[in-house]
Amino acid sequence: MDLGRINEFALEMIFDAGKYIRASFSQELIIETKSDFKDIVTNIDREIEQFFVNKIKMRDPSHKILGEEGMGDNIVTLDGPVWIIDPIDGTMNFVKQHRHFLISIGFYVDGEGKLGYLYDVMRNEIIYAIRGEGAFIDHRRIRKLMPLTIEEAVIGINASWVIPNDKINHEKMIQLIKKVRGTRSYGSAAMEISLVVTGKLDAYLSMRLAPWDVGGGMVIAEEVGAVTSNLKGKPFNLLTHDTFLIANPSIHKILLDQFIELK
Amino acid sequence: MDLGRINEFALEMIFDAGKYIRASFSQELIIETKSDFKDIVTNIDREIEQFFVNKIKMRDPSHKILGEEGMGDNIVTLDGPVWIIDPIDGTMNFVKQHRHFLISIGFYVDGEGKLGYLYDVMRNEIIYAIRGEGAFIDHRRIRKLMPLTIEEAVIGINASWVIPNDKINHEKMIQLIKKVRGTRSYGSAAMEISLVVTGKLDAYLSMRLAPWDVGGGMVIAEEVGAVTSNLKGKPFNLLTHDTFLIANPSIHKILLDQFIELK
Repeated sequence: MDLGRINEFALEMIFDAGKYIRASFSQELIIETKSDFKDIVTNIDREIEQFFVNKIKMRDPSHKILGEEGMGDNIVTLDGPVWIIDPIDGTMNFVKQHRHFLISIGFYVDGEGKLGYLYDVMRNEIIYAIRGEGAFIDHRRIRKLMPLTIEEAVIGINASWVIPNDKINHEKMIQLIKKVRGTRSYGSAAMEISLVVTGKLDAYLSMRLAPWDVGGGMVIAEEVGAVTSNLKGKPFNLLTHDTFLIANPSIHKILLDQFIELK
Repeated sequence: MDLGRINEFALEMIFDAGKYIRASFSQELIIETKSDFKDIVTNIDREIEQFFVNKIKMRDPSHKILGEEGMGDNIVTLDGPVWIIDPIDGTMNFVKQHRHFLISIGFYVDGEGKLGYLYDVMRNEIIYAIRGEGAFIDHRRIRKLMPLTIEEAVIGINASWVIPNDKINHEKMIQLIKKVRGTRSYGSAAMEISLVVTGKLDAYLSMRLAPWDVGGGMVIAEEVGAVTSNLKGKPFNLLTHDTFLIANPSIHKILLDQFIELK
């Protein structure tokens, strides 16, 4: 399998989708709610996923697709080549802010991440990685993350996990917030992951993410030395929803051991 | 006083500063801590403030300047023409992310906001307002904020105010977080204000801000119908540090009455 050629194909497909999304702001958006009123989808999410599915299937029908909007295949194993796709990560930001949303794509073969993409559509900023060959931002190589202390860290965390909740001991989250230099929250897992892999944040954690939220970012993380896991310290399960942590390697274990206690 | 000409002067000065800041990333940054390790300043903050002070004093020495880094005047009243300047709001973001920081400038005469500027340096996006003439983003007019419910709101709030603290009843903040559609935190008051005045966030609150954090944004808020106050519902005190709330007019009172209880 020629990863270089698949990479070129993926980059072109992603840039084309970005152009379409940017042009879409001049049209009327159709917004629907999904599981609850905080979970929304637009016609553009669906159109972009369908565009990716068509492109990938036309190129090689044997490639399987796991997409947020369900236009791909019914995936029960990661055997063979599988694309994991979020056409718009941060749909609320897309609708309300017209910024701060990303296309996230991962390409896996037999469960191993080979290619990863995080594309900030409005910044026109592409972060991508080819397994074993490194990660790049706008085609410049991203250097490995530099070590730092937990006191120096700026972490991405949503306020929902800092208040009493049924997933995690929030008292330890309070200790974490007092310990670190600062916290941020952007409303897009892919955006927060893109900031961690470029050293702009030092960690990001969430109690519930889907494969398409992290599939692209996990391949990039590997190439820059960022550590990913679920909140038990095990590999994130790409076949279902799971908890998630990505961190600078010098603080990943400290976060897990001292501040994260699942209920 | 010809506000149109002062506006042209200010815009040119701000764009020049932006060019200088963008070019500064190729040089070594000198970082110092101020009051504590979370409060930092760089040589660029100081150089940019000095640049603004020089420009303003050369144009009209009678104009007073209240600046974050103290290069301006010792301001004890807002009588006469006063510039309120933050050369880089979001210095931690500036240092660590090379993005998500803004230049914030307000021009006041006898305490009344006449001109306001929020310049996202890396996006090269300027938001400004001329009192009575409206607010503009990249020279396109910003429309008045549309009403919405508290359940539909996305608000900017730092996690520090959601955990037990000595400023505010955090239990009510927990209720607020459960009530709204989402929360965000960007690490720059000027950035959060810029998102509120353009309808990308619906409110932002902080327990402690300085005049230069809000002086520019308050003039813009007035022109788009966003309501600003301190957390007691009184006008923000531009001569000292104060609590701060900016919100869509349809939720400002609800936030104050139902969710904000100062200690």
